[in-house]
Amino acid sequence: MRGMTRRDWTDKLRVYLVTDDRPDHEEVVAIVEQALAGGVTCVQLRRKQEDGGPMLKLAVRLRELASAHGALFIVNDRLDIALLSDADGVHVGQTDLPASLVKSRFPELVVGVSARSVDEAVRAEQDGADYLGVGSVYPTATKGDAVLTGLDVLAACRRAVRIPIVGIGGITVDRAPEVMAAGANGVAVVSAIMSAPDPKAAAAALAQRTSL
Amino acid sequence: MRGMTRRDWTDKLRVYLVTDDRPDHEEVVAIVEQALAGGVTCVQLRRKQEDGGPMLKLAVRLRELASAHGALFIVNDRLDIALLSDADGVHVGQTDLPASLVKSRFPELVVGVSARSVDEAVRAEQDGADYLGVGSVYPTATKGDAVLTGLDVLAACRRAVRIPIVGIGGITVDRAPEVMAAGANGVAVVSAIMSAPDPKAAAAALAQRTSL
Ligand code: NI
Repeated sequence: MRGMTRRDWTDKLRVYLVTDDRPDHEEVVAIVEQALAGGVTCVQLRRKQEDGGPMLKLAVRLRELASAHGALFIVNDRLDIALLSDADGVHVGQTDLPASLVKSRFPELVVGVSARSVDEAVRAEQDGADYLGVGSVYPTATKGDAVLTGLDVLAACRRAVRIPIVGIGGITVDRAPEVMAAGANGVAVVSAIMSAPDPKAAAAALAQRTSL
Repeated sequence: MRGMTRRDWTDKLRVYLVTDDRPDHEEVVAIVEQALAGGVTCVQLRRKQEDGGPMLKLAVRLRELASAHGALFIVNDRLDIALLSDADGVHVGQTDLPASLVKSRFPELVVGVSARSVDEAVRAEQDGADYLGVGSVYPTATKGDAVLTGLDVLAACRRAVRIPIVGIGGITVDRAPEVMAAGANGVAVVSAIMSAPDPKAAAAALAQRTSL
């Protein structure tokens, strides 16, 4: 945030990269660097299988990269790593730390919340969430247990809340326009960039297909 | 800490209970309550398999119980949960968040560090650790991958650092006196209390066998 207006940082949710769990940090950093050069506007560090020490080291590197490219940097779940790496925010799922408590204790952080229904979306907004990640919009292999919401739930969330919405789950370059058309302010992807043969080109294509 | 002298809180490391990963929170709370009534002086919440939301709920309950009995409350690894539950401190392993950074950003927290050698103990003290957990002193089933240090390493750490040391790993009521005799300020246990037929009696026996 730091002096950004709400409009400014909402714009930065447009091309939202979520990292994967590959063990090699150098690979993650190289892909994120290319993705930022291609037009990614927000980087979320999500590491489900890593201890706090190495995760913090990676967070500090991604924080620097994101800043150098004027992108947001968000940490999934681990508020402590967000704080220690000077992240812009933290993203929490329905079973992670409660958004209301995080927001009340650390109001300077952007807090994103995952929502799979209109009810969860409305509750998250009431809890003080700054934006929502709604999905899974499409079937996805990244999160095998993800609930499939489709575009309808995203469109219904758009009508029900005022905060920005990022669509997530199975989004590809080709599908990005319909996600935006359903009311999303941005698209979050993992494999569409992390597993792309050319992450920079994939990010550029997503940036192009999501521009209004 | 909050007004406790160093001597005060060092005394509170004497009978140090580390929780296990059993799924049922009510069981954990009931055992901790009995253990505190029996004489436990410090409770560490360690949950390797739990999301932040439920872990924080459990932390808040154990924080209250510990306070009601004048015991310390420490959270393993998750600094964010320590902060949000108003814990007295956080305990980090060698691959968790770095003690130096935690201490510099949150100087009011007690920071404990796990050490398996004199080198790790000396480095932790230099990093600003407030106390050490040294072990595994004995073979243990709780942490299958734990390095066995024996009493010798604990005694060598005692000579090498000035901060308090808690022995951990396979400690039973019968073994507690020799751990204290090797220079420990306290004994940390999981199963000796969590799996005891009578947790209150087990805690009382540990309190009795560790009193100086
Ligand atoms: Ni009680």
